[in-house]
Amino acid sequence: MPGEFDFIKWLDTQSKPSDFVPVSQGDDLAVVKWRGEDLLLVGVDQVLDGVHFDSKIHPPRLIGRKVMNRNLSDCAAMACLPAAAVTTAVLPRGSGIDYAKELYLGLREAADPFDCPIIGGDTASWEGKLVLSVTILGRSAGLTPVTRDGAKVGDGIYVTGPLGGSILGRHMTFEPRVKLARELSATGRVTAMIDISDGLRRDLSHVCRRSGVGAVIDAALVPIHDDAVKLSADGKSPLEHALDDGEDHELLVTGRLDGLGLTRIGAITEGGQILLRRDGHAEPLVAGGWEHGL
Amino acid sequence: MPGEFDFIKWLDTQSKPSDFVPVSQGDDLAVVKWRGEDLLLVGVDQVLDGVHFDSKIHPPRLIGRKVMNRNLSDCAAMACLPAAAVTTAVLPRGSGIDYAKELYLGLREAADPFDCPIIGGDTASWEGKLVLSVTILGRSAGLTPVTRDGAKVGDGIYVTGPLGGSILGRHMTFEPRVKLARELSATGRVTAMIDISDGLRRDLSHVCRRSGVGAVIDAALVPIHDDAVKLSADGKSPLEHALDDGEDHELLVTGRLDGLGLTRIGAITEGGQILLRRDGHAEPLVAGGWEHGL
Repeated sequence: MPGEFDFIKWLDTQSKPSDFVPVSQGDDLAVVKWRGEDLLLVGVDQVLDGVHFDSKIHPPRLIGRKVMNRNLSDCAAMACLPAAAVTTAVLPRGSGIDYAKELYLGLREAADPFDCPIIGGDTASWEGKLVLSVTILGRSAGLTPVTRDGAKVGDGIYVTGPLGGSILGRHMTFEPRVKLARELSATGRVTAMIDISDGLRRDLSHVCRRSGVGAVIDAALVPIHDDAVKLSADGKSPLEHALDDGEDHELLVTGRLDGLGLTRIGAITEGGQILLRRDGHAEPLVAGGWEHGL
Repeated sequence: MPGEFDFIKWLDTQSKPSDFVPVSQGDDLAVVKWRGEDLLLVGVDQVLDGVHFDSKIHPPRLIGRKVMNRNLSDCAAMACLPAAAVTTAVLPRGSGIDYAKELYLGLREAADPFDCPIIGGDTASWEGKLVLSVTILGRSAGLTPVTRDGAKVGDGIYVTGPLGGSILGRHMTFEPRVKLARELSATGRVTAMIDISDGLRRDLSHVCRRSGVGAVIDAALVPIHDDAVKLSADGKSPLEHALDDGEDHELLVTGRLDGLGLTRIGAITEGGQILLRRDGHAEPLVAGGWEHGL
């Protein structure tokens, strides 16, 4: 039966050395000729069976895609270009080499459109469930990385698409907003950006806390995804789903960005309060604002 | 009860921005000012409960140390300097924030002596067992990275310390040979290097395969660790333990390196055969050599 070494041998056939990566997987470490004019951005994200996907339902190709796309979405949030990735897989014993290949091909399916090679990794197996991680290297490529801490009083708050109910399927299939993020950043009018992975409510509070500002969101302006409406059969309103549900992976952007096709949902304010304006009155969107933590 | 966000808040207090890493953990990605004169080396390694450690026996501080040291040992194998790391942790639900902190402090205990900051990470929890990973960024720092593919016919084969029986405890406490590797590489006399993680037999075959050469090892010259002798009570000889046991994390080095304090155990030969010379005759050390796979 083919084992770990056969999988590694197969992986070796999948990547070729290049000018940028003269030594790829197959040595102790990969070697990259990083261009000094590019800032290097780095982060890691992982998905676990039963938490971020369900291996009984989701095919391995889609699982690989998801974890790579989560990392590409982090690149979008910083307005950098994906440059290379390394991955880990913890496989349930007996998964088989075909399953491992499908995971890898899912990773590649997401990364290839961005010319982002997978240059190394580690595979292990055990009696437990599947875990996949991707560490992404991004490059600034001519644009200053956009952080979470630059939001200014008076800035508009925008999102790049409708929110809520991603658990119905979009959490496995979303498209990382790398291209749009680069275009927005290139205008020079973006002050802060984050990808909505924990839900609008939480991710907005991350931006406000790090920027030292407050916010007012207009309930009537929050774009609600059809999936949030469908999911509201559970008794929670579509708006609450749009505010709370995680894994939308749309971008939350602050700045002066009217006229660029984004949906404006509110404005940055002084102080630490984060409010929701609804039916003519304002209520706390985040209890106590960021000043008192989550 | 303190949760994931409290842990992340605590982590934020543990790392400070620097000239090299202006944006550290707390944003979507960390930002690194990579120096263009340095090649960037990158790789990832992970440890799993029940496979690489036993959480019932090993304290979290030691588990964190092990996974970081595995990665630092990969830096040694390439003769690069550790520059920065990102980590993932998958915690069994209910581990508690103190356990998570101990894991992190173990990672730091290993990395700090190398001025290798932890600049990002991801923490998740589930019903399964503990998984930890580290992605390491290394920098060439004036020395060409040493790969596995440079061994030449006539080179000596050397190891940096006694082998075998690491399972008795050394697999948790080994010291990565970064300093020694840099010194050796600086002589210009090293042709290939690997850290012995899969066992001498296998790791030598990796070097031979990638270099397109064979090898003869002299059984009488292989340095055998006391732990291999102790473990030989299981019926396998101390020599077999020294050849087969994994996780020694000593270096296997080829080149013209006599007089540098290393233990010479054999020589690189033509062809794909890997032989063990014992009691005046030679037998295959790796069945069929690397030409026919493992």
